[in-house]
Amino acid sequence: MRVLIMGAAGMVGQKLLNRIQTGQSGLDAVSKIYLHDMVPANQIAGVAESEVLVGNIADSQEMQKLADLKADVIFHLASVVSGEAETNFEKGWQVNMAGTWAFLEALRGHHEASQQSYRPKVIFTSSIAVFGAPFPDKIYDEFLNAPQTSYGAQKAVLELLISDYSRKGFMDGISIRLPTICVRPGKPNLAASSFFSGIIREPLNGVEAILPVSDDVRHWHASPRSAARFLTHAAQMDLSQLGSRRALSMPGVSCTVAEQIEALRKIAGNDVVRLIKPQLDDHIVSIVAGWPRNFDTERALSLGFESEKSFEEIIQIYLDDDLPKA
Amino acid sequence: MRVLIMGAAGMVGQKLLNRIQTGQSGLDAVSKIYLHDMVPANQIAGVAESEVLVGNIADSQEMQKLADLKADVIFHLASVVSGEAETNFEKGWQVNMAGTWAFLEALRGHHEASQQSYRPKVIFTSSIAVFGAPFPDKIYDEFLNAPQTSYGAQKAVLELLISDYSRKGFMDGISIRLPTICVRPGKPNLAASSFFSGIIREPLNGVEAILPVSDDVRHWHASPRSAARFLTHAAQMDLSQLGSRRALSMPGVSCTVAEQIEALRKIAGNDVVRLIKPQLDDHIVSIVAGWPRNFDTERALSLGFESEKSFEEIIQIYLDDDLPKA
Repeated sequence: MRVLIMGAAGMVGQKLLNRIQTGQSGLDAVSKIYLHDMVPANQIAGVAESEVLVGNIADSQEMQKLADLKADVIFHLASVVSGEAETNFEKGWQVNMAGTWAFLEALRGHHEASQQSYRPKVIFTSSIAVFGAPFPDKIYDEFLNAPQTSYGAQKAVLELLISDYSRKGFMDGISIRLPTICVRPGKPNLAASSFFSGIIREPLNGVEAILPVSDDVRHWHASPRSAARFLTHAAQMDLSQLGSRRALSMPGVSCTVAEQIEALRKIAGNDVVRLIKPQLDDHIVSIVAGWPRNFDTERALSLGFESEKSFEEIIQIYLDDDLPKA
Repeated sequence: MRVLIMGAAGMVGQKLLNRIQTGQSGLDAVSKIYLHDMVPANQIAGVAESEVLVGNIADSQEMQKLADLKADVIFHLASVVSGEAETNFEKGWQVNMAGTWAFLEALRGHHEASQQSYRPKVIFTSSIAVFGAPFPDKIYDEFLNAPQTSYGAQKAVLELLISDYSRKGFMDGISIRLPTICVRPGKPNLAASSFFSGIIREPLNGVEAILPVSDDVRHWHASPRSAARFLTHAAQMDLSQLGSRRALSMPGVSCTVAEQIEALRKIAGNDVVRLIKPQLDDHIVSIVAGWPRNFDTERALSLGFESEKSFEEIIQIYLDDDLPKA
């Protein structure tokens, strides 16, 4: 089986690659992994040979070349990120929507050229940004997509395209709506959500972290390990079970910032928690106010997707998987 | 005020044109109406001068030309129909999605070239085909879009695009999800829904009509007059009331085929009803089984959209508006 990872240089792409290479993916006999991204992805040695490919998913010729690989399983994690899609409207739609549509069309071309025998699994990472306020207490599986960012709208459009291409039998697709991934390893970034990881990661590394929102803010989290596991679980399941609804909100942990901090206190103590410095940032407060807080992910749970059960578990996974390397 | 109607040659386009030309639209001082379609639209004399334009909405140069008209209000009714979008997958996506996206991009170009002063109202006709079974008893305003046809998926994508372009201020858009329009004037066609009108229209014209489904089939209807009124109501309302959710299911009448027939009996008598000939068609039975049956259109009602209250009213409108010309 040959696997293509689009967006392989990113944090989740690397976690996914590691999961496959260490034989935890449940995928049969992976012989080759193509690692595609804008920059050369790190390779990880393991069960399969890997090959690094560099290119831009907004380029339709590049998309044709990727489709020509005729991979059996395709993980599509590549995207212009939320903030950039908001400030650069045209780029967001061209890359996130038109680029991926060109890729789906190229895959359909191979499906038809092969007399319908080529029908890849396509696992697309969508986002809880497809939802927009006002929300119910828990966002349920039948709640509408009403994105309030261009990024969320692009993800929602891709969900529709992947469902329709799958319904017609051109591919076997699924869209996986990831929770906010926490604790992200590495450095803080400019994303408005960066602090959710920062207030845990920085103190655990002996560094101060700014908390820009009130500690009663509730949000929806899963670990990087869960993100990789969601993707490989999707890749090995029988997607016909999904019927015509091929976009799924993934399970996670709903907790307030205060609960995040208490979990950190239990694991690492008061001295570590004291490194968190509250300092309200009205801009971030207003962005975060429009974000989902809690989900009822009945369908995903019934299909065997699993996340952590508590924020303490999420911190422990950071300690196990990432802190040693930090 | 200058108005552009895309899809002006179609039945709803003509009803809309008639409503504007007879001064019932509520739009201020319409000076010019551009009538665009694949074939030359019939002109109707009235309050405004009209101009007939012929072209294909899949052609991006044509879309640029239409955007260059810089109309104040744009009604977008043009579409590859449901059956054709299903059998000709590529054409459906190219016309219904890519063509309209090119048009939205051309409008955005004028918005930017005008230093943000050009910001047209765009009223897009969407469809209840954005919904797919299984349904709740009544489809409520927060129920997810899970289309089971390419046509429905294309409409759902356009809803997302129009919401996002509106959220960014490039235009002031709304998507109007029309019920099945009944009683359609004219001849029966090959649409699976054709019989909903046919079993009323043909008997009223002294002609037999085949009923291809069981009479307990429930469906969602509004008259052609309501369709035109929904569109003009949308054109004159303050769309900022919609917030970020700019797609609305329109009100209608939910009734079974048996209830349609009883309404016909009350209005036209037993001899007319006897012209309906039940003759099951398994293909149509299975298509119709996946269609919406009933809606709770609380938002649209609260925003002043109105439909008929009974199927008898719907028949009466056919008698008033269309039968004399038949």
